[in-house]
Amino acid sequence: MRILITGGGGFLGQKLAKALVARGQVRGRAITAMELVDMVRPAPVDADFPVLAHTYDISKAKAVHDSFVHKPDLVWHLAAVVSGAAEADMDLGYRVNLNGTHNIFEGARSAGNCPVVVYASSWAAHGGEEPEIVEDGIELNPQTSYGTQKVIGELLLNDYSRRGLIDGRGLRLPTVSIRPGKANLAASSFMSSIFRDTMEGRKSNCPVPKDFPVWHSAPRTVVGNLIHAAEVPGEEFGTNRNINLPGRTDTIGEMIDAMTAVFGSDAADRITWDADPVIEKIVKGWRAHCKPGKGERLGFRADKSFADTVQWFLKDDINR
Amino acid sequence: MRILITGGGGFLGQKLAKALVARGQVRGRAITAMELVDMVRPAPVDADFPVLAHTYDISKAKAVHDSFVHKPDLVWHLAAVVSGAAEADMDLGYRVNLNGTHNIFEGARSAGNCPVVVYASSWAAHGGEEPEIVEDGIELNPQTSYGTQKVIGELLLNDYSRRGLIDGRGLRLPTVSIRPGKANLAASSFMSSIFRDTMEGRKSNCPVPKDFPVWHSAPRTVVGNLIHAAEVPGEEFGTNRNINLPGRTDTIGEMIDAMTAVFGSDAADRITWDADPVIEKIVKGWRAHCKPGKGERLGFRADKSFADTVQWFLKDDINR
Repeated sequence: MRILITGGGGFLGQKLAKALVARGQVRGRAITAMELVDMVRPAPVDADFPVLAHTYDISKAKAVHDSFVHKPDLVWHLAAVVSGAAEADMDLGYRVNLNGTHNIFEGARSAGNCPVVVYASSWAAHGGEEPEIVEDGIELNPQTSYGTQKVIGELLLNDYSRRGLIDGRGLRLPTVSIRPGKANLAASSFMSSIFRDTMEGRKSNCPVPKDFPVWHSAPRTVVGNLIHAAEVPGEEFGTNRNINLPGRTDTIGEMIDAMTAVFGSDAADRITWDADPVIEKIVKGWRAHCKPGKGERLGFRADKSFADTVQWFLKDDINR
Repeated sequence: MRILITGGGGFLGQKLAKALVARGQVRGRAITAMELVDMVRPAPVDADFPVLAHTYDISKAKAVHDSFVHKPDLVWHLAAVVSGAAEADMDLGYRVNLNGTHNIFEGARSAGNCPVVVYASSWAAHGGEEPEIVEDGIELNPQTSYGTQKVIGELLLNDYSRRGLIDGRGLRLPTVSIRPGKANLAASSFMSSIFRDTMEGRKSNCPVPKDFPVWHSAPRTVVGNLIHAAEVPGEEFGTNRNINLPGRTDTIGEMIDAMTAVFGSDAADRITWDADPVIEKIVKGWRAHCKPGKGERLGFRADKSFADTVQWFLKDDINR
């Protein structure tokens, strides 16, 4: 099994790469090589098989095409310009998230071996005229350019799968919290930093009120689901290869209480509460509740509590 | 009011141009100029204002950009590679229907005057895991590359409208029957030719059985709806600017009976009934029933009978 991970330098890509190395196999076959692709050189990952790190922009068709000369059997396409950045720089978002994703699927098509492609779509797919509780089968009405681009990727994934060019599986990831590393331009960035930064001793601002509900999932659970997506037989997805990934709804206040129960109260004391209308407008456009029927039937998982998330963060990301 | 019509050489573009000339105004303001764009030079249209015909490929960003230097107030974007052709030549379909549509919206963005853009989406948007009776708000699951590309255009239309770059309105056109002119590579082409060709004295093949139901609309009604789309205030569409256009469901047999009632029985006798699995697979993937709630509320219209369609065809298209 040859593996290609776009966004392989990001926190999810790195966690996924390490989880795959720990497993050693996918779909019952040993992993023989892994290629991590990102805009900046992905950190090295130790493994018993070769792990290559490549630096290129997926919006460059030629560079993508060259990656697929090696005919990867499994592709995780995680690379994207995040929501806030795609909203601020419209051209950049379309170039990477639309053209770049199209390039990835074209690369897979050119390889000719119909690879399994797991695509990270996003909860930002939902919004606008959709009902408050998202169920399967409702018309997607994203309210950001990022969400729009992610849904376009879903449609491409379906069409390329229907044509037998890829064996695609698209997952609408809930807000991934708690993310390690630094804050980024994702509108959801604060949903990690108010926990991560404060537990690490820094102040962090929450731009929405305590009663703001969030549909979220822990990195460990998301990585498990990304791997599970490759394991499920493609035909079980049906003609729509894209699903709402299970997650859980908690308010910011409930998440802070869970952090306090695990970590103590000093972290929560470092949260400031200055409203940010730009962030609030974006995240209020997202839905906070979901009944992910198809995702659950296909065996995808949700967290049992945010306290687990806090404990996993302390163990996985800051070695406490 | 300056008007730009892409696909202005096609049968719908030509009918739309003539209907606009006959009205002389849109949105309460006189039409001052019209530009018809197509791959082959659009036929001239007589008018009291200048009507320019331009020949270019909308997949060429520079050519599209140059068209928008004149800052059209109203754009009807009808140009597309039709369903059968987009299925047979995947690259062509994506280049014109995805990149070309993106170019049109980018052209409108570059003009900077937020033009009204009426976009011809398609009934081919629907299929796959959708319910048999299409209602508003169901997740689109197109089963052709053409349908996929049309839905991607819808998403772009919404995002460009949300950003205030265009004032978009997308209409999912039912199968347009009876189309004048020659058969084309649209999978739905037979749904016109079995009436048009046989009334004009030629044989024509129906590749599906008589009990096959069709969601359809007459050209005259579609043109009226394309103009109405420009008249409706943009905000009445809500955050999803794309609607299912009203239409009606008849079986092929019911449509033939209506033709016979209006025209006599000799036309129907010229229909042959050889199955075509390729066409049948595509059109069976489309839905035949719809409850277009939002479209009806916004004042869009459906035909009262297919007999009307036959009479309009005889009057409008073959001057009988």
